[in-house]
Amino acid sequence: MADEEHAELTRLVEQNDLTDIRLWLAEHPPYEIADELERMDSRLAIVPFRLLDKDRELEVFEELDPVHQHEILLGLRDSAFHELLEEMDPDDRARLIGEAPAKIATRALAGLSPAERKMTAALLGYPEESVGRYMTPQTVILHRDLTVGRALEVVRAKGSQAEIVYTLPVVDDGRRLAGTVELSDLVISDDETLLKDIVDVLVARVQATEPAEGAARLMQDANLVALPVVDSEERFVGLLTFDDALELIEAADSEDIARQSAASPVAGHYVAVTVPRLARARVLWLFLLIIASTLTVTVLQGFEATLEEVTALALFIPMLMGTGGNVGSQSATAIVRALAIGEVRVRDLPKVAWKECRVGFMLGCILAAIALLIGWVVVPGGVSIAVAGSVIAICTWAAVIGSTMPLLARRVGVDPAVVSAPMVTTLVDATGLLIYFAIAQAVLGI
Amino acid sequence: MADEEHAELTRLVEQNDLTDIRLWLAEHPPYEIADELERMDSRLAIVPFRLLDKDRELEVFEELDPVHQHEILLGLRDSAFHELLEEMDPDDRARLIGEAPAKIATRALAGLSPAERKMTAALLGYPEESVGRYMTPQTVILHRDLTVGRALEVVRAKGSQAEIVYTLPVVDDGRRLAGTVELSDLVISDDETLLKDIVDVLVARVQATEPAEGAARLMQDANLVALPVVDSEERFVGLLTFDDALELIEAADSEDIARQSAASPVAGHYVAVTVPRLARARVLWLFLLIIASTLTVTVLQGFEATLEEVTALALFIPMLMGTGGNVGSQSATAIVRALAIGEVRVRDLPKVAWKECRVGFMLGCILAAIALLIGWVVVPGGVSIAVAGSVIAICTWAAVIGSTMPLLARRVGVDPAVVSAPMVTTLVDATGLLIYFAIAQAVLGI
Repeated sequence: MADEEHAELTRLVEQNDLTDIRLWLAEHPPYEIADELERMDSRLAIVPFRLLDKDRELEVFEELDPVHQHEILLGLRDSAFHELLEEMDPDDRARLIGEAPAKIATRALAGLSPAERKMTAALLGYPEESVGRYMTPQTVILHRDLTVGRALEVVRAKGSQAEIVYTLPVVDDGRRLAGTVELSDLVISDDETLLKDIVDVLVARVQATEPAEGAARLMQDANLVALPVVDSEERFVGLLTFDDALELIEAADSEDIARQSAASPVAGHYVAVTVPRLARARVLWLFLLIIASTLTVTVLQGFEATLEEVTALALFIPMLMGTGGNVGSQSATAIVRALAIGEVRVRDLPKVAWKECRVGFMLGCILAAIALLIGWVVVPGGVSIAVAGSVIAICTWAAVIGSTMPLLARRVGVDPAVVSAPMVTTLVDATGLLIYFAIAQAVLGI
Repeated sequence: MADEEHAELTRLVEQNDLTDIRLWLAEHPPYEIADELERMDSRLAIVPFRLLDKDRELEVFEELDPVHQHEILLGLRDSAFHELLEEMDPDDRARLIGEAPAKIATRALAGLSPAERKMTAALLGYPEESVGRYMTPQTVILHRDLTVGRALEVVRAKGSQAEIVYTLPVVDDGRRLAGTVELSDLVISDDETLLKDIVDVLVARVQATEPAEGAARLMQDANLVALPVVDSEERFVGLLTFDDALELIEAADSEDIARQSAASPVAGHYVAVTVPRLARARVLWLFLLIIASTLTVTVLQGFEATLEEVTALALFIPMLMGTGGNVGSQSATAIVRALAIGEVRVRDLPKVAWKECRVGFMLGCILAAIALLIGWVVVPGGVSIAVAGSVIAICTWAAVIGSTMPLLARRVGVDPAVVSAPMVTTLVDATGLLIYFAIAQAVLGI
């Protein structure tokens, strides 16, 4: 993917050079086309989209982010609009309609064939971000009493309608999930073998109402190409496929990363997102944090007399705050990630806090040596001793705060990722100042 | 997965209760067993591992992280050791040997059968973190002149040896990759159809020496269950499979997240990692950052006279530094992520910088209003005006710095993820102080 090629499509669209746009489109696979459309202003993307071959339109469309999908739907005539939606995968369509403005959602549902509408409504009945919204109901279901030969005939007959046939759900009489067979096993096995003899009954399964991210991480742990989804009575309702799992994990990680910096996740390509939307995604936490940072002003006010007496103490405030914030951010980030990928659980709290306490203390001792050196060069004597002592205390404290807050958040049912590095930093700032001035007063005897 | 069950295995191992360990193992799938072993001290994990059935040993072993794999290998007798390695997937084995201490690596290579040794050596010839280290060479290769019926016979005959048969590479006479066919298409198509008529020639492909992370993200974009890998002459050499892609993406994201907090990534389960190893992963950047923060001390020293004259200026230092750091972290985090998932490229730098400049200014104006309010309550007059003005300038500056640094890092060939939030914060601290005091001196006329 040379950078130049990408630059070209945007330029061709700006020049409205239809012949060359067609040529460019013919030479690129759908995912690259989608990627390039997402980098454009969403209103411009309709121009090249209209020039796509009918059979590639759908593939490109399914790869787009919701913002661009909505804009393109608004730009289509009724017949093209309905054709596109009718042919989409039911899970992609349900999510699109679930997130679309009412105008688009109503028009979309109204135009669907009864069968597709029923499927979409069923998926929309599941909570947002649940497995039900991401699974595909279009699968080939096999009864456990079939032979392998007969099962392959079923796959041949119905496979082209299904989104995936690599993992095949095997059910009993009540449509209850018995397990799965892999298509590769069917192909390799003898035709007379019975499914019930080769079905993997221990295969992982999830309920449709469970969170989709957890299901995706389960697929990664268990190396599944598709994960069977059941209802509360263990009846098979759909498959979560590996491509949705990949997308879910990437989206969840993007969200966690944004949250770690105290920003809300923004849908859509960075390049296509507008300045006010970026600012909106970031302002809420900044607002709360600047208000919280009034605490630091209050703490310093309380020590204003000390500050006036020994102005040199002020020189080290940013260094101490910075170091404490860094240590706290590291701990918080490590624990938020460990929680996300299931390495740490809430009940590990005491163990985690004690471990981080030791890590913080160890780091504090190393950094204190450097702080003492720096401090001594600038202000020899008591001040630099107070600074070094504060580094040890603040680092230990920051590591404990940074590691326990995400666990406490999870315990009270809040996404641990909201415990962002800036939040920990702000908290450590105010408490760190208290520690610093308390130690300074003790050391300097004021 | 109830928390209680997990607690149990560790306890059973500590009590050395072999019967109950066996029972626990029989009731859990391999990935849950591996997860639980990884939570233990690596030296303890050998106890339950030895109790596993022969046929599950391999599955559990392949799910473990390198640290636990090495420890378990050290605990095995020669015959068990060689049997395990002989049966591993070649790509997993190559990575294991590539990362193992010399003692294990030599013993491992020496014990392999000639065929497996050759395959392993070939994979180890590729650079670390390249596709070649992660691809599987065990595939069923089809010649483009075959019919579908004949191709299915080949899959039936050789499929059980292959790691995956869902995506099948199709080659021409020179073993050059013509494209791929999906097993589902073979099953559904007529037996007489020629492969060359259904092969997907446009399918994405990568070279074995390319970075593995990029290949995994390509698979996600293109929704591929397996990605064909070729050598420099376009000859087929292996397939990168979806499960490795999932693992690569999760590992890459974990690494980026750790880097964002200025820590090095740590291999292994958080719970099993020792305190000194955690401290070692974090200390390097903290060390560099505390030295960099001497800059803040120097800047403040330069303004010591001003500080002595108006001590009240010191009250707002943590608030200003904090806010600047937060804005800078948000920008840096957004751009590092956008670079990682391919939404932003180096040549977007001017566009990105200008966009973030406007975002920073917009955020600065909003936050300045609050800062003015807070400032006015504490110290009415010039100081609070200086604080508010500084908020605008610092936020704008922080957003520009935070967004351009990752792009500049990428341009000079450094991983943009090393531009961590703490690094941006430290830089913004020193320059922010300069801005603050310059504005204060101007406003207060000192």
